Amino acid sequence: MQNLPKTVGIIARYDKKEALTLATELSEYLTKRGLEVFLENTLEGKVKADGKFVPLKDLKTDFIITIGGDGTILRSCLSLPKPEPPILAVNMGVRGFLTEVGPKDACGVLDKILKGNAHIEKCSKLKASANGENLPDALNDVVVSGGEPSKIVYLQVYKDDVPVLSLEADGIIVATQTGSTGYSLSAGGPVLDPKLDVIVVTPICSLTTVRSMVFPANSKIRIESVRPKDMLVLVDGNYRISLPSKCSSVTVEQSKEVSSFIRFKSEFYGRLQGRLFFKGTG
Amino acid sequence: MQNLPKTVGIIARYDKKEALTLATELSEYLTKRGLEVFLENTLEGKVKADGKFVPLKDLKTDFIITIGGDGTILRSCLSLPKPEPPILAVNMGVRGFLTEVGPKDACGVLDKILKGNAHIEKCSKLKASANGENLPDALNDVVVSGGEPSKIVYLQVYKDDVPVLSLEADGIIVATQTGSTGYSLSAGGPVLDPKLDVIVVTPICSLTTVRSMVFPANSKIRIESVRPKDMLVLVDGNYRISLPSKCSSVTVEQSKEVSSFIRFKSEFYGRLQGRLFFKGTG
Amino acid sequence: MQNLPKTVGIIARYDKKEALTLATELSEYLTKRGLEVFLENTLEGKVKADGKFVPLKDLKTDFIITIGGDGTILRSCLSLPKPEPPILAVNMGVRGFLTEVGPKDACGVLDKILKGNAHIEKCSKLKASANGENLPDALNDVVVSGGEPSKIVYLQVYKDDVPVLSLEADGIIVATQTGSTGYSLSAGGPVLDPKLDVIVVTPICSLTTVRSMVFPANSKIRIESVRPKDMLVLVDGNYRISLPSKCSSVTVEQSKEVSSFIRFKSEFYGRLQGRLFFKGTG
Amino acid sequence: MQNLPKTVGIIARYDKKEALTLATELSEYLTKRGLEVFLENTLEGKVKADGKFVPLKDLKTDFIITIGGDGTILRSCLSLPKPEPPILAVNMGVRGFLTEVGPKDACGVLDKILKGNAHIEKCSKLKASANGENLPDALNDVVVSGGEPSKIVYLQVYKDDVPVLSLEADGIIVATQTGSTGYSLSAGGPVLDPKLDVIVVTPICSLTTVRSMVFPANSKIRIESVRPKDMLVLVDGNYRISLPSKCSSVTVEQSKEVSSFIRFKSEFYGRLQGRLFFKGTG
Repeated sequence: MQNLPKTVGIIARYDKKEALTLATELSEYLTKRGLEVFLENTLEGKVKADGKFVPLKDLKTDFIITIGGDGTILRSCLSLPKPEPPILAVNMGVRGFLTEVGPKDACGVLDKILKGNAHIEKCSKLKASANGENLPDALNDVVVSGGEPSKIVYLQVYKDDVPVLSLEADGIIVATQTGSTGYSLSAGGPVLDPKLDVIVVTPICSLTTVRSMVFPANSKIRIESVRPKDMLVLVDGNYRISLPSKCSSVTVEQSKEVSSFIRFKSEFYGRLQGRLFFKGTG
Repeated sequence: MQNLPKTVGIIARYDKKEALTLATELSEYLTKRGLEVFLENTLEGKVKADGKFVPLKDLKTDFIITIGGDGTILRSCLSLPKPEPPILAVNMGVRGFLTEVGPKDACGVLDKILKGNAHIEKCSKLKASANGENLPDALNDVVVSGGEPSKIVYLQVYKDDVPVLSLEADGIIVATQTGSTGYSLSAGGPVLDPKLDVIVVTPICSLTTVRSMVFPANSKIRIESVRPKDMLVLVDGNYRISLPSKCSSVTVEQSKEVSSFIRFKSEFYGRLQGRLFFKGTG
Repeated sequence: MQNLPKTVGIIARYDKKEALTLATELSEYLTKRGLEVFLENTLEGKVKADGKFVPLKDLKTDFIITIGGDGTILRSCLSLPKPEPPILAVNMGVRGFLTEVGPKDACGVLDKILKGNAHIEKCSKLKASANGENLPDALNDVVVSGGEPSKIVYLQVYKDDVPVLSLEADGIIVATQTGSTGYSLSAGGPVLDPKLDVIVVTPICSLTTVRSMVFPANSKIRIESVRPKDMLVLVDGNYRISLPSKCSSVTVEQSKEVSSFIRFKSEFYGRLQGRLFFKGTG
Repeated sequence: MQNLPKTVGIIARYDKKEALTLATELSEYLTKRGLEVFLENTLEGKVKADGKFVPLKDLKTDFIITIGGDGTILRSCLSLPKPEPPILAVNMGVRGFLTEVGPKDACGVLDKILKGNAHIEKCSKLKASANGENLPDALNDVVVSGGEPSKIVYLQVYKDDVPVLSLEADGIIVATQTGSTGYSLSAGGPVLDPKLDVIVVTPICSLTTVRSMVFPANSKIRIESVRPKDMLVLVDGNYRISLPSKCSSVTVEQSKEVSSFIRFKSEFYGRLQGRLFFKGTG
């Protein structure tokens, strides 16, 4: 943020009392400090605050606070206006992978932000289209699978029109470096350093191969289903579109848009420990 | 088969012309040789034969011919009367994993069977129940997963009431030795020798572990979903039951029933090559 | 143990002061209770005790106490007289996988044993021969690899003379169910329930396959190196034999001998947690 | 090559008759076309040619021909003078991963090169040092392992002084994108597109983790052994250095040097098929 922030948007899990309480507190705290506060309209009637309630897509504020876990962040990034305002991700006590601070540290961290004292981390996103229809950008991953769980699909994967993978599998994950520590990891993919700018492709339970592939960020990935099947495309685990039972085509490439996160410390590999190491370790 | 067969049941893929043609041919061939022929009633009007058309569950014949691939066998074994008649599995040219002979060798092999010259291989099955409701027995596997693809579920797995696995995963596969070369293999499970009598449990894309476990055949596997989620139970990839969004319980143990296959050669590891080795191999 | 024990053998890590101190204490404790104490002769001069110092292979006592970690147990089982006396495995504070009690509980547990109050767990072992030469039995595993680290070898693996695996790999692990949680696990093999009686074969970094295989206990595994290479056979990570640079043959099958452990609680899956689950798990 | 070549170096497997015959033929062919031919001095007395026999490190020619497989290329790249002359890699009939043409096409391809008609592909290399001692650059990978096969080592891995991996393992592989399809792949690592400029780190049979990590090309990887053990460092599977039984430190980073290959077609993913797909595939 080049200028001191004057407006803030607040997004929170509306099914968690603690999240709603914290949204009220932070809203009051920032109003007192002179900021104009906007809240996602799903919070109307649940959060008692002076701010204005607007749809997520209209939160064109200087920055955004999300209150919740990684799921709340992924859901927000699917719908925020472009270019996305930077996000301060506050968790509810359980440290997620994308969240930055716990509820107790939120006010202290906001003081720093109001003084212009924050580092912005930009995360590249993926832009996908399915049978020609554009989907919202993905911060983590785009998954192409059968229409129901554990249904085999037959996929041919191309990188810049060169065939690279033939799959008989549950599906395939195309992930950013940010997404490499999520679903792609659980399917056997590598951890990608956050400073990389690449795309990783990981098969899900394939009978034909067990390999992940990493491509340059400017690669165009195309996934063709080579036998007619009901298919599903899933963006960041939240946005889903069903494809009819014919041979479908999904393309994925890097988006021009990015998501931005306000960071104070860089501790990627510290956060990662729990997903990397077996408990028995040292 | 202790006595020479007098009755035969015929099951075939009704969506493949070649399968229907072969069903007609084999039906005529066996009628001429004095056998009483019964056909699955889905073939009525599609197969021109003198036999009687009856539902799959009423095919109480001395043996059964299935015409199609592994999918046709799995579908048949879900519904055959108990004890299941032995199956001669005829493929349509593409050698499946469970099928025994190609269409050209079918008549020759039937001649041997009519002379009492056949080896019966018995394959153990799994008996499952979901929230107390009994499901049909599985020849290959019972899969417990989220209600939609790529949806994480939280599972606690018990063996004889001892907790053995905690999963945050797409789901879990409980497979017989027969099923070990199918879906369990594509999820990273081991190959189990057909002479073993065991149960293998393989997680699907788990964030918490990457290990398969093998248990004695008399083990009782219980899978509890520890957070309320829409769930799905899938038997042999064909029979599916949805579980409502509450904490569910699925038990799996060895069935008293078996499936029987008529075999002439034992070449398990020969069949397996294509699923074991990368193409580059010598 | 059918009769109350009158003699005991003591084995301890001679490079750990705590182990030597405990060996002295337990020796005195058991002498006072009227047992005849024998100590492994490597402890002579290091353990001050009234017992007799004899070679490991002559410890024909009613039971054995090992003081140390899993390595001490594996080393002992390679050389104990046959049939092996049952082992009470005492660790040095760090709970190993095979050890049973910590140093503080040792005396209490010995009191139970002296009253005849102990459960014996029998663990099957593997009998191997390399180019016709017999090797000591393995409690965990027999590894066949190149003579130096990261050197590719070309192996053909047979089960009862049927070819089952062709490997271009660092090597191969043949393990018991006991060994399935050791090196085989780290190479990607499944966990085998301790009540199983099977053999698992796991490739090490193979370019040709990624699959483990599980075989019945009465299987005869034969590993042929199909190109002349310097080879190494390693029994339980301790006993090693180099094979000359020609095409070698190693056979592995279940031994008639077993190792016996004195157990008080059965908590296999509890011990296993640290090797199964990533730290991040709930 | 900016200018037409006037000198050529020839390297060949001296233990293969076909390689020696081809070296003679190509030597004569190029001498007739006016090039000055130099041969690696290990070929002296084995190849009948007019050229000069010099040590590999003195082959400062306009380009190099290697006759053999990937092993011959890796061995050559360890010792060629810097900057390395571009290599035309001729195989002996079996298509390797790095080789470009078969013996029958060699003369045709040389005609193109003599006309200046060739594409040079530059491959980045890794520069390693062990306990302060510099090792030759690696085209594929640097492996740090125990001094003997299947010996566990305890490693702490740092990226730019940040701890990223704690391993109890057979060892670790640090590979270039070129090496990602070799040993790293067989240990479970991802395939890296040849247009990437990254470093991949893959554990070998680790009890503590199963994850590969991909880092930017400018990362400095440091591997500390945290318990004193006999260690081995292996560069491209050929150059090996033993480290004494103390806590050792190995650093790996991208080299300023590159290896250059003369290419006519780009078919990376075509070559890769055999290492990616199981035989059963379509």
